Amino acid sequence: MIKPQTLKGFRDFLPIEARKRQYVINILKQVFESYGFQPLETPALEYEEILMGKYGEEGDRLMYRFIDRGGRKVAMRYDQTVPLARVVAQYQNELPMPFKRYQIQNVWRADNTQKGRYREFLQCDIDTVGTVSPLSDAEILELIYKAYRKLGLEIIIKINDRSLLSKMSAKALPILDKLDKIGEEKVIQELQSTGMNLEEAKNLLVETKALKPSLKLQTIKDLAVKLGCPTNSIEFNPTMVRGLNYYTGLIIEIIPKNLDSKLSLGGGGRYDNLIGMFTNKQIPAVGFAFGFDRIIEAMEELKLFPDNLQTTKALITVFSPELLDKSMEVNSRLRLNNINTEIYLDENTKMEKQLKYADQKQIPYVVIIGPDEAKNNTVTLKNMKTREQEIITWENLITELV
Amino acid sequence: MIKPQTLKGFRDFLPIEARKRQYVINILKQVFESYGFQPLETPALEYEEILMGKYGEEGDRLMYRFIDRGGRKVAMRYDQTVPLARVVAQYQNELPMPFKRYQIQNVWRADNTQKGRYREFLQCDIDTVGTVSPLSDAEILELIYKAYRKLGLEIIIKINDRSLLSKMSAKALPILDKLDKIGEEKVIQELQSTGMNLEEAKNLLVETKALKPSLKLQTIKDLAVKLGCPTNSIEFNPTMVRGLNYYTGLIIEIIPKNLDSKLSLGGGGRYDNLIGMFTNKQIPAVGFAFGFDRIIEAMEELKLFPDNLQTTKALITVFSPELLDKSMEVNSRLRLNNINTEIYLDENTKMEKQLKYADQKQIPYVVIIGPDEAKNNTVTLKNMKTREQEIITWENLITELV
Repeated sequence: MIKPQTLKGFRDFLPIEARKRQYVINILKQVFESYGFQPLETPALEYEEILMGKYGEEGDRLMYRFIDRGGRKVAMRYDQTVPLARVVAQYQNELPMPFKRYQIQNVWRADNTQKGRYREFLQCDIDTVGTVSPLSDAEILELIYKAYRKLGLEIIIKINDRSLLSKMSAKALPILDKLDKIGEEKVIQELQSTGMNLEEAKNLLVETKALKPSLKLQTIKDLAVKLGCPTNSIEFNPTMVRGLNYYTGLIIEIIPKNLDSKLSLGGGGRYDNLIGMFTNKQIPAVGFAFGFDRIIEAMEELKLFPDNLQTTKALITVFSPELLDKSMEVNSRLRLNNINTEIYLDENTKMEKQLKYADQKQIPYVVIIGPDEAKNNTVTLKNMKTREQEIITWENLITELV
Repeated sequence: MIKPQTLKGFRDFLPIEARKRQYVINILKQVFESYGFQPLETPALEYEEILMGKYGEEGDRLMYRFIDRGGRKVAMRYDQTVPLARVVAQYQNELPMPFKRYQIQNVWRADNTQKGRYREFLQCDIDTVGTVSPLSDAEILELIYKAYRKLGLEIIIKINDRSLLSKMSAKALPILDKLDKIGEEKVIQELQSTGMNLEEAKNLLVETKALKPSLKLQTIKDLAVKLGCPTNSIEFNPTMVRGLNYYTGLIIEIIPKNLDSKLSLGGGGRYDNLIGMFTNKQIPAVGFAFGFDRIIEAMEELKLFPDNLQTTKALITVFSPELLDKSMEVNSRLRLNNINTEIYLDENTKMEKQLKYADQKQIPYVVIIGPDEAKNNTVTLKNMKTREQEIITWENLITELV
């Protein structure tokens, strides 16, 4: 017998979990659509040469790659930005510009697994391609605010301008980036270990912290506020760098407000030199990636999911084979009134087991039609939360459940 | 420069196409949920030993398989039934029984590509696991009827009982299955080529055509009709076999009514010996797979998609950099009233180009705020279909677009 198991870093989503994910996806989609972002889907497999070499050495190492039956070198989707670049090049004459798209698909990375890091995970990206207008950066900031708020999450949008950091050494940047996590003392120590003396390290930190937002960044923030993003939800942070070195202007990082963990709930920024990679042109872009798994975890911790995402309103039980027809009749009536119901599928099952089934599926109501109810055209309606029950007419049943 | 292209048999879905797919998925999900089917997701990659050998020689040949970085033999999802069997075995104590789940995910098959056949395609399955009750078969039939009707498709649900065919030779079955396509004469010819003489072939055909529905099949049909499926939408067809030989009872095939093509729009049936493959138990099941790509094609042909699936109601144009603030103000007002809007992201773009952008994205209305409108707190509202325009107040704009 083969052992039923999944690969490390890969997950099944059973109904309760799958519904939570769908809940978040639906809210995000709704927000994306309300700003005119449009859906895009790209294949799970691409030519290796399309994806390879675009993510640096680590990317090449972590990418799932193989040779297909036709001898082609293929690779599995590693992110959604390189496929976007391919799409922009491939359909450049068909796409409206600026091209505003959202993409919500899985990506695969053969990374070391650890708490919260998976080998298959959902990416949830918005990008605006084809304009350098600060309004496009600002729109992303406002959308971010709206989206997290709609999920119930309070956040700080940390922003910086990558061009402010352009004079700094590549070694110093990732150290400064850790300021909020490890504190000033440790940052100075680590800077010294790159070859600076104590004074140089201190000065660099002081100077960086004293940086003022660039004119561009200030414009973006002002526009975002005008669009409706509260000014105190955006925070300029001159030591924020973000790992990805393809950003060219605005960089964004989302920090949860009322969680112990200060892990980022999403990040993004402007990257004007990447999307043109399959063309001969420079194509500017600004985008943002929602940290889907982290968002789910944060919402779990803060109990932001509705109590019950089950959409079935009532289980129609079957009292006995003789009374199956009555149950079917009640069931049909409810469905005709657009009430989501389920009829218990076995007419020879003890009522106790049927009630347990409703509990397991978190179905809020159970309808019982025994011989008396059948005779009087009534039903017993049981509230599975309070365990209270009442005998009511079919008409009242519809009114109660609608 | 690397050529931007996709692999043969793999598709990008640009916004208009992606929205159509989403439209179908949403309707199907809504129907599934209304019957108490719950969502399930399984990984794209599984241990090869979980998937291999379950689909026969062809499956093993067409499966995307490779060795991952950790030396594990892995394979890409080939269908959703074997993963379901794994899930049922792996979580048997957690899942409510009967387990009614739907699953809508891509599968990958390295098949020869041809019109309408792809290497990555969406499967859209419902299955009820853990009961032999004919009510579960009947429920699937009724759901099928409702789902296709909700999509606007008129169909015939062809049914048969596999057990009626159990005495027939494995060679004769696929030939009889072709009766509707190739006609009696050809069927008799092909039967002869398996070694029968003319009379035997004729007799077999006559006998098969004369078969009556089994008692079980009749019960299933009666229950389906009681549940609400019109009796004339279900058609007993004793020569229907269906390729997959794992069916054990009911078999289902969906034929479109008003299309030239008689290609199946979906199929399914009862398969009581498959889901238990990772356990020591026999676990009965009945299920159905909607032919997603075929459904999309049929709906295109019959023009069943709404005219415009674009959710953006209006593009707020930007007349000039000086008037950007006014456009932003109008935009915010509309959004506050839950109207999906898009503000044009470049304040230096000619109005003509902005209108073209709205046309390209099929946005039905355009709002223009020039100097006069700005002064009078009015806007010009242009209907992009009729090309008519009118000058109206902000309040009326909201009323018109809500």
